[in-house]
Amino acid sequence: MIHLSSLLKGGRLKSTRTDVVNFISSLNDDRRIALATVLVNEAHVLALEKCGAIKQAVSRKILRALHTLEKHKFSSRRAEDVHVLIEDFVTRQTGQAVGGFMHLGKSRNDQVATAVRMTLRGEMLALDKLLLSFELSIIAIAVKHANAAFPGYTHLQPAQPISFGHYLIANCFSFIRDSERLLEAYSRVNLSPMGAAALAGTSFSLNRAFIAKVLGFDGTVEASLDAVGGRDFALEALSVFALTASDLSRIASDLLFYSSVEVGLVKIPDEFASTSSIMPQKKNLDPLELIRAKCGKVAANFNAALSLMHGLTSGYNLDYQELTPLLWQSIDELSSCLRILSVLISKIEPSEHVAERDYLQFTAATEIANLLVRIEDVPFRTAHQKVGLLVRTAIRAGKSLKQMGQTDWETALGFRLKPRTFSSLRRALDLDGQISTYRTAGSPNPRETLRLIALAQHRCEKLTAEHKRRSNKLELSRRLLRKATAAT
Amino acid sequence: MIHLSSLLKGGRLKSTRTDVVNFISSLNDDRRIALATVLVNEAHVLALEKCGAIKQAVSRKILRALHTLEKHKFSSRRAEDVHVLIEDFVTRQTGQAVGGFMHLGKSRNDQVATAVRMTLRGEMLALDKLLLSFELSIIAIAVKHANAAFPGYTHLQPAQPISFGHYLIANCFSFIRDSERLLEAYSRVNLSPMGAAALAGTSFSLNRAFIAKVLGFDGTVEASLDAVGGRDFALEALSVFALTASDLSRIASDLLFYSSVEVGLVKIPDEFASTSSIMPQKKNLDPLELIRAKCGKVAANFNAALSLMHGLTSGYNLDYQELTPLLWQSIDELSSCLRILSVLISKIEPSEHVAERDYLQFTAATEIANLLVRIEDVPFRTAHQKVGLLVRTAIRAGKSLKQMGQTDWETALGFRLKPRTFSSLRRALDLDGQISTYRTAGSPNPRETLRLIALAQHRCEKLTAEHKRRSNKLELSRRLLRKATAAT
Amino acid sequence: MIHLSSLLKGGRLKSTRTDVVNFISSLNDDRRIALATVLVNEAHVLALEKCGAIKQAVSRKILRALHTLEKHKFSSRRAEDVHVLIEDFVTRQTGQAVGGFMHLGKSRNDQVATAVRMTLRGEMLALDKLLLSFELSIIAIAVKHANAAFPGYTHLQPAQPISFGHYLIANCFSFIRDSERLLEAYSRVNLSPMGAAALAGTSFSLNRAFIAKVLGFDGTVEASLDAVGGRDFALEALSVFALTASDLSRIASDLLFYSSVEVGLVKIPDEFASTSSIMPQKKNLDPLELIRAKCGKVAANFNAALSLMHGLTSGYNLDYQELTPLLWQSIDELSSCLRILSVLISKIEPSEHVAERDYLQFTAATEIANLLVRIEDVPFRTAHQKVGLLVRTAIRAGKSLKQMGQTDWETALGFRLKPRTFSSLRRALDLDGQISTYRTAGSPNPRETLRLIALAQHRCEKLTAEHKRRSNKLELSRRLLRKATAAT
Amino acid sequence: MIHLSSLLKGGRLKSTRTDVVNFISSLNDDRRIALATVLVNEAHVLALEKCGAIKQAVSRKILRALHTLEKHKFSSRRAEDVHVLIEDFVTRQTGQAVGGFMHLGKSRNDQVATAVRMTLRGEMLALDKLLLSFELSIIAIAVKHANAAFPGYTHLQPAQPISFGHYLIANCFSFIRDSERLLEAYSRVNLSPMGAAALAGTSFSLNRAFIAKVLGFDGTVEASLDAVGGRDFALEALSVFALTASDLSRIASDLLFYSSVEVGLVKIPDEFASTSSIMPQKKNLDPLELIRAKCGKVAANFNAALSLMHGLTSGYNLDYQELTPLLWQSIDELSSCLRILSVLISKIEPSEHVAERDYLQFTAATEIANLLVRIEDVPFRTAHQKVGLLVRTAIRAGKSLKQMGQTDWETALGFRLKPRTFSSLRRALDLDGQISTYRTAGSPNPRETLRLIALAQHRCEKLTAEHKRRSNKLELSRRLLRKATAAT
Repeated sequence: MIHLSSLLKGGRLKSTRTDVVNFISSLNDDRRIALATVLVNEAHVLALEKCGAIKQAVSRKILRALHTLEKHKFSSRRAEDVHVLIEDFVTRQTGQAVGGFMHLGKSRNDQVATAVRMTLRGEMLALDKLLLSFELSIIAIAVKHANAAFPGYTHLQPAQPISFGHYLIANCFSFIRDSERLLEAYSRVNLSPMGAAALAGTSFSLNRAFIAKVLGFDGTVEASLDAVGGRDFALEALSVFALTASDLSRIASDLLFYSSVEVGLVKIPDEFASTSSIMPQKKNLDPLELIRAKCGKVAANFNAALSLMHGLTSGYNLDYQELTPLLWQSIDELSSCLRILSVLISKIEPSEHVAERDYLQFTAATEIANLLVRIEDVPFRTAHQKVGLLVRTAIRAGKSLKQMGQTDWETALGFRLKPRTFSSLRRALDLDGQISTYRTAGSPNPRETLRLIALAQHRCEKLTAEHKRRSNKLELSRRLLRKATAAT
Repeated sequence: MIHLSSLLKGGRLKSTRTDVVNFISSLNDDRRIALATVLVNEAHVLALEKCGAIKQAVSRKILRALHTLEKHKFSSRRAEDVHVLIEDFVTRQTGQAVGGFMHLGKSRNDQVATAVRMTLRGEMLALDKLLLSFELSIIAIAVKHANAAFPGYTHLQPAQPISFGHYLIANCFSFIRDSERLLEAYSRVNLSPMGAAALAGTSFSLNRAFIAKVLGFDGTVEASLDAVGGRDFALEALSVFALTASDLSRIASDLLFYSSVEVGLVKIPDEFASTSSIMPQKKNLDPLELIRAKCGKVAANFNAALSLMHGLTSGYNLDYQELTPLLWQSIDELSSCLRILSVLISKIEPSEHVAERDYLQFTAATEIANLLVRIEDVPFRTAHQKVGLLVRTAIRAGKSLKQMGQTDWETALGFRLKPRTFSSLRRALDLDGQISTYRTAGSPNPRETLRLIALAQHRCEKLTAEHKRRSNKLELSRRLLRKATAAT
Repeated sequence: MIHLSSLLKGGRLKSTRTDVVNFISSLNDDRRIALATVLVNEAHVLALEKCGAIKQAVSRKILRALHTLEKHKFSSRRAEDVHVLIEDFVTRQTGQAVGGFMHLGKSRNDQVATAVRMTLRGEMLALDKLLLSFELSIIAIAVKHANAAFPGYTHLQPAQPISFGHYLIANCFSFIRDSERLLEAYSRVNLSPMGAAALAGTSFSLNRAFIAKVLGFDGTVEASLDAVGGRDFALEALSVFALTASDLSRIASDLLFYSSVEVGLVKIPDEFASTSSIMPQKKNLDPLELIRAKCGKVAANFNAALSLMHGLTSGYNLDYQELTPLLWQSIDELSSCLRILSVLISKIEPSEHVAERDYLQFTAATEIANLLVRIEDVPFRTAHQKVGLLVRTAIRAGKSLKQMGQTDWETALGFRLKPRTFSSLRRALDLDGQISTYRTAGSPNPRETLRLIALAQHRCEKLTAEHKRRSNKLELSRRLLRKATAAT
Repeated sequence: MIHLSSLLKGGRLKSTRTDVVNFISSLNDDRRIALATVLVNEAHVLALEKCGAIKQAVSRKILRALHTLEKHKFSSRRAEDVHVLIEDFVTRQTGQAVGGFMHLGKSRNDQVATAVRMTLRGEMLALDKLLLSFELSIIAIAVKHANAAFPGYTHLQPAQPISFGHYLIANCFSFIRDSERLLEAYSRVNLSPMGAAALAGTSFSLNRAFIAKVLGFDGTVEASLDAVGGRDFALEALSVFALTASDLSRIASDLLFYSSVEVGLVKIPDEFASTSSIMPQKKNLDPLELIRAKCGKVAANFNAALSLMHGLTSGYNLDYQELTPLLWQSIDELSSCLRILSVLISKIEPSEHVAERDYLQFTAATEIANLLVRIEDVPFRTAHQKVGLLVRTAIRAGKSLKQMGQTDWETALGFRLKPRTFSSLRRALDLDGQISTYRTAGSPNPRETLRLIALAQHRCEKLTAEHKRRSNKLELSRRLLRKATAAT
């Protein structure tokens, strides 16, 4: 078992119990940050060399050993953490007289914060890519369904006719906002703590800006205590994950409701469903339920992180070790949900002839009231009350609005309609037609839906360009580091 | 990839996409309930045989196959879940004409609820054992430290003298309550859902009470919809874990504060500490910080479970699949924390000569005020105000109370003391002596501390007896099932 | 502004800033515990008198002042807290030479813990009463709906026929378990901290058991540090509230789904609905949505409490002051939800002729497969696959199962049926009849439903008896205290 | 009781039960959005007039009535909500023939979303102002304490010397990031939903951009379904509040630890403390404990919001009504915490002569190891181990490092030091001097601390300018609306 005390071979403390080392070992979770930790070591050793703190002969030997580690698999659980494992490996390869210098002017405190930020930024970009591709999937299918009426719901009751295209693009905007939040949080994640050492920097003249640059950071976390002790970058990332999860869980809930036997508004291919082990007729939409539940857990992860940070004092606390895995867990869950949902959404079909369903004629009620205002100059509140009565009458009679004649309408409304009013009112019952009568910007009017789609497309393109700019910068820095550490 | 559709070879649905099956697969988490699931199948097949639903020839072949599965490792991830894997295994071994009958009258819905409850009850007993043993560790060390004064704190400020023994036994009682809660929750966990099938029972005359008995349950979950759809048993277990975690996190916080350099009230052996990778003087109590953080996550797990259950409708939902791993995660974290803390607590030593620390003399202030009431017949509120002034005077003068002479006291108090009062007041400054003057039941008076310890011991013994009774019952049922399924 | 420093008129500290006193003032929340606090003071003063710590002349004057306070409204916000307000009132009435003795041997720490426990136990009993009455409402309506088929759901898809009565009684059992949990938690709430003073008891010979008795407690919290510092009693109460809320939110979700236009399984009277301000046809079930949301907040309150307790050290911390209002908030929300839901549930009607809905015939699929096993001796897994095919065929053909003739069935199933099999299979399509064929205990068979209802009724009666026993005990103690404090 | 049905006087539904209206009433919480709701109505009526949907004669009468409402106190609880109350008031004043038109083309759905966003943006700016002023308080005091050593902590153990100024400014940066997040979230809050009506816009040609402009919004929420159904703006605001709370709770925890009797690193004036009701010597820092606890609740509020949103379907749900109060509660708690902490921080003093405390000499260990590397060319890992031994030796001997002579050092280190090494090492024990030897950017070197302070000041100034720009815009729009609605 490799533990700091094995590197120290005595010193301040007698050796730590094996069960304690096992208990505090983070190696299992550290695998995720292993490569980043190696790169951080490379950049740090380079900076030590540049400021003359260690000799070039020493630094180059360490760098060579670190290079071999880049592709290493840290599978064993038999070490306290990845930091100790790396130092132990380098020291075995190069001897204490060389490897013994690699931890000069740095601490696990700044090293782990840096490696977590590097890994996180990469994962955030990957997640952002999945999110953007999900948004494009939505856009691609929304464009096909801008013209047919589809019931919009409030309070789980049919409200007014919209289109499936409008439903989709409206939801798409919430994911676009999530992408924007992701990039804003990224800007606060992609700052380098290195050079902050334990919490107070060091008396060696390490160039923090240089280290930040070769590691692809946009800058440094300025104050050293803030650099090692601040975890708001992680909390903020978790909050963006939670918001995204909340938006995803809503679309899953919608699709479960829309695809229930009774509602039957969308058709989801068999390949996304499971049957029951006992009930032969069942078509269960397992992945949608799991997405909902997994998103609930991602949302709860932010709370778990806040809880474990509650009341901690400044500086590094080992409690942070339990915070990091919440990041990876949330990212993994969200990624798997986005992957499945992107495919599923692209294969979904709204049901045909939705506009012809009798019970949906009642969703024309608002427009009927509007027409009474417009044509009959009735105050809206009066029109609302009268149309309400009309609906009540129809329901009692077990009729749809189309099944009621003009006299039925007039009796229910309580007054005679002007000559052409009735035909106008009846026209509103054609839901496919009605959506074209919406006049406000952003409404489900097909023309507006296409405009919203173009707008969403445009924002996705801007986000994609920004995504590429950041990815490229990270790649460039990787090459920069490689070059700087390779040259003798 | 073994999926329900591979057992069905067609039927209601075309086959499910591989990425979807991977996404919904619970096999990784199912390993924990694998053995229980096999046993549930055995009991169910036995009941099918008993009621004549399947022939003995069929049932005995299935049982033989199931027996071989009891020791099986379900390591592969290549199946939808453990239920399908078991049925597939049995069907391969016995043929469709035999194995095809094993899922008659049952569903994965009742099967998984039953297996989760069986596994959970076992884990709860194991956790309870660790908890009881932790309580006994506390008792064992508390008994040694009943006589020496140790500062009790409120608002993180020294309040009044107690003893380390009192501190320990007071905390012990909260864990004893956790043990009691665990057993109460157990009673609602250990009820059998089997026979509820999908949600509505079955038209086969399965004897639910018999199945419950051979599986070691205390009874059945009566209503079939409740049996498959209720998860309050899991939520309740998680709430008890959360309460236990909250109590554990407090003791970890206390010990971190008590063992800080400045406070220095307890000594924790080096073997529980780590040094820093950069700061040679550091003795960090890593395991205590990790216990605090892990307990924060266990507490948050209950919230995660509540969140993902929020708004779900009755009956089985696949969302439940995400609930189950929270149980195992909380249990594993708590168990590891209890194991470490049991050892650590048994090796802890309060510092010596605590009563002699000058600044702690101020913790005698309450008793000094009490004495003024008792001897000088001053109203308590007046005595409080005057002793407050005395303390303020001492602090301003940079003196301890012992360093102040009678005139200093009298000046500060504002009146002349009766002849023997001053010596009585001074006696209160002997903190080791003062704790013996407490007169109320349950106070840190050493006599009372020993009584509390005996009381805690007694309650632990009762809990241990109850624990054994339940363990024995489970073991007996295991033998009962083995016997019933072995006989031809 | 009455603050401790106004009672002390100087002493240890210079006076506290007004903005700080306003910030830390708990008076607004203290109103809830005001009466209990007065009673605690009475019992304490009585105990001081009994042990000779204060003279009878003094105690009786204090008691008289306290009696006048019992009916006092503490409406003003102009005090630090209710404890100070009471002492200030008594001291003004009786003078410092009398009132100055009332805080002898006690602290706000034990006083507030005691008053919170007293208030909480009362509120828990009141909540329990509402819960029991809700359970009885469910029972009363369940008994009317045991015979007609009603679709049971899993995964939000119709699964098998149950009855509305079974649905109701199954849910009732979860509330019965909540009642049981409430009483179990009550036992840990109803213990007296008084006599623990600040945290270490006192040197006056206060009889803690006596104080506990006259205040209606079942015993004392034994260890003094535990008595003032333990808040697991509050956390446990909050966890029971959270579990109850989770169960309530499920029934609200169910009813929202069942009463949606498309599903239309239950009818809820207009008087529980609102229309839209703009859409005249809307019938929104606002109270059910609010119940779901309020229950989500009650569930989250337990998490808030755990969060704010995280990492606190032993002894009293002012953080606890923020914990208490969570109790009252959760109780108030739950109570209002239970009141509305009790009335609503008693007025709900399942829709008529549910069994005649064509699409629900598929819920007979499990029983059809069972019949193939029973009559045709087909292995269940084979029957399941064949019935699945049958359903798929019917759906493709746009037919219900009743609309398919024997040949259609045989073609789909892939084999010729025995002479009388087909009529048996067709009989299973009569859903109202089918529920009587369930044979397992606790199934939706009407006979079993009535048995479950009787069982639930029986458990409610036992719970009611226990509720009464505890209420009576509290009332008795109230009279006991009154008598003991009234006599000279 | 004013309810929608009282405006409608019949219609779709029979009247709602009074207990139900009381239960669903949001009026108590609506007071917060009352003024904004009036303004929204004004802007909407103006837009109705502009597009010719209602006559100017009508609109001007309505506007006049609305103007009188701007200063109205909505104190009564006797209405369903503020929306109904306003329409009722206007209709009473102007008659149904006028007031009956005011709800044309809008819904409570878009109206409440708009009013919440308007109120929230105002509260966010107010909170931001408090936050900026808190940051400036920190800066003002940090600048005074850049030169004296103050122990930096990790794992609650003294780690390395920093300065109190560095401690303060490091924490300041986390609040500056919170300010930045607040402004970023603001950009997504300050978009207008008006014109989205129920969820689908309207057939009247309302100019949404115009309404947005006169209400001070930066734009509209484009898609109508998104405008009424999206609540991610509220969740995001709550997440920023949670992050800010988390940062505040840390500083409160730090100050509680630093001001504890044993640690004694900072002095907090009496005016921020309370004494105990029983223990005369106590100086409890009540406001800091309350800040910690209140911040825990603010953090938990985000979780509560996520929980209650979990699984909701698209469109407006009444569940949202429970979400809004969480916003105001979090803002109020944070505001009160910031106000108190701003004053407290400005009155805090670090203790004097901290650098002279013997036990803090060990915090020089890192620099001693660095010096051994620099002067004696020992590998750092070796130096670390040897200095660890030195510390262990000193602690065993009960000596400080200054009390040990050169031979003691050499014995402990295990080698002879070069001639001038020992004096260099001893110099490191001068902690006040040591902080000047830090060489990295952002370290506690006084020069760097001043640079960090200037940097923080600069970022605060930019944030303040942005704050002003937004405030001014809001004020301007207010005047714009007033002018547009006043003119005939």
